[in-house]
Amino acid sequence: MSSTHSGPNPGGPSSSVAVHSAGNVRKINFCQWCGGPTKHEIPDGEEKIRAICTVCDKIAYENPKMVVGCLIEHDNMVLLCKRKIQPSYGLWTLPAGYMEIGESATEGAIRETWEEACAEVEVLSPFAQLDIPLIGQTYVIFLARLKKPHFSPGPESSECRLFSLDDIPFDSLAFSSMVVTLKLYAEDVKAGQLKFHYGIINKKPGTSPSDIHAYTLDYHLQS
Amino acid sequence: MSSTHSGPNPGGPSSSVAVHSAGNVRKINFCQWCGGPTKHEIPDGEEKIRAICTVCDKIAYENPKMVVGCLIEHDNMVLLCKRKIQPSYGLWTLPAGYMEIGESATEGAIRETWEEACAEVEVLSPFAQLDIPLIGQTYVIFLARLKKPHFSPGPESSECRLFSLDDIPFDSLAFSSMVVTLKLYAEDVKAGQLKFHYGIINKKPGTSPSDIHAYTLDYHLQS
Repeated sequence: MSSTHSGPNPGGPSSSVAVHSAGNVRKINFCQWCGGPTKHEIPDGEEKIRAICTVCDKIAYENPKMVVGCLIEHDNMVLLCKRKIQPSYGLWTLPAGYMEIGESATEGAIRETWEEACAEVEVLSPFAQLDIPLIGQTYVIFLARLKKPHFSPGPESSECRLFSLDDIPFDSLAFSSMVVTLKLYAEDVKAGQLKFHYGIINKKPGTSPSDIHAYTLDYHLQS
Repeated sequence: MSSTHSGPNPGGPSSSVAVHSAGNVRKINFCQWCGGPTKHEIPDGEEKIRAICTVCDKIAYENPKMVVGCLIEHDNMVLLCKRKIQPSYGLWTLPAGYMEIGESATEGAIRETWEEACAEVEVLSPFAQLDIPLIGQTYVIFLARLKKPHFSPGPESSECRLFSLDDIPFDSLAFSSMVVTLKLYAEDVKAGQLKFHYGIINKKPGTSPSDIHAYTLDYHLQS
């Protein structure tokens, strides 16, 4: 357990879906199944306030979301996409997005890479899990390789480009999660050994979400 | 990428919350924010059918849930809890449960271990990510150690016990995810090197959820 880096802030999703901040149970006013009004109480045997339907008694649980993506290595370069959507319009990201119900993390990462970079990839190994508690997101990033040397911007990207490690645009990345992932990757490449990394990205208090370098990487563990 | 094991089926959560099957958008009939009725359509720019509010236009996304837990090593034994709740009442599990909004995976795993085994642990390293697409769950398991040699059953457990690797009750485990995790761990210990494992647990078609050995572990990757 160690703390490294002081770079970017908690990033939003790097893909198809807009940034959602962490859940707020008080905003759940109705039951999505029966339409009944909710009450906000701690259910029997639990510890946290939940939205409970006053008609059918169902509880609306809110849980963190997984954002899955690929770090694609090709000829000692990595593939980045320039975002053509908000948030972080015009900034660079790994292809990534929310994991969907019914798919695995690898399937999701491959799908997002196809949607954002029109690239067919093979996933090689897990590279990082980065939790961002403030916004209820967990990034799961896999190392991958291009099956064919082809890529082009999908509907949410204005440009896709391979960058050598020395040329990664660290000040023009879309999210803190991307700064952390690419820094860890560059360090591992320099050290000659790729590892699996776990860490918690905590935003520095009082800083703007757009300040991608205002974060700490806490509880950094490696396998 | 390889496929190993033929053991248990997609496991439910190993903890505080009942098994939820993977989301079904058709069951979302009302907007949880404004109470308006939903329609079920593919939103502009998306690919999947979503529940969209006909009043406020908000989309109700459903995403997989993370189940976080600890594999606690103590004197060459591992700590298991006997479940005192459904599902899988009376069967053995690692302490684990749904990750909550606002916490990290390690915080959640430590919390669940405290709740289910009254044990204070230090997380040592990430051990496994196991996706179960059929039920929309991803297990994230960490290796951990007891800070003090004390544990006792919490309200959801009838018993907590240390098992040597040869004595793990593989036929009385609560979920397939636990069979997979403990098999991978036993193999790593035998080989003399603990790794990080990623895999997809797919249930064999036509088998019962309670048949914990009716699964395949697909897309097994290691770091």
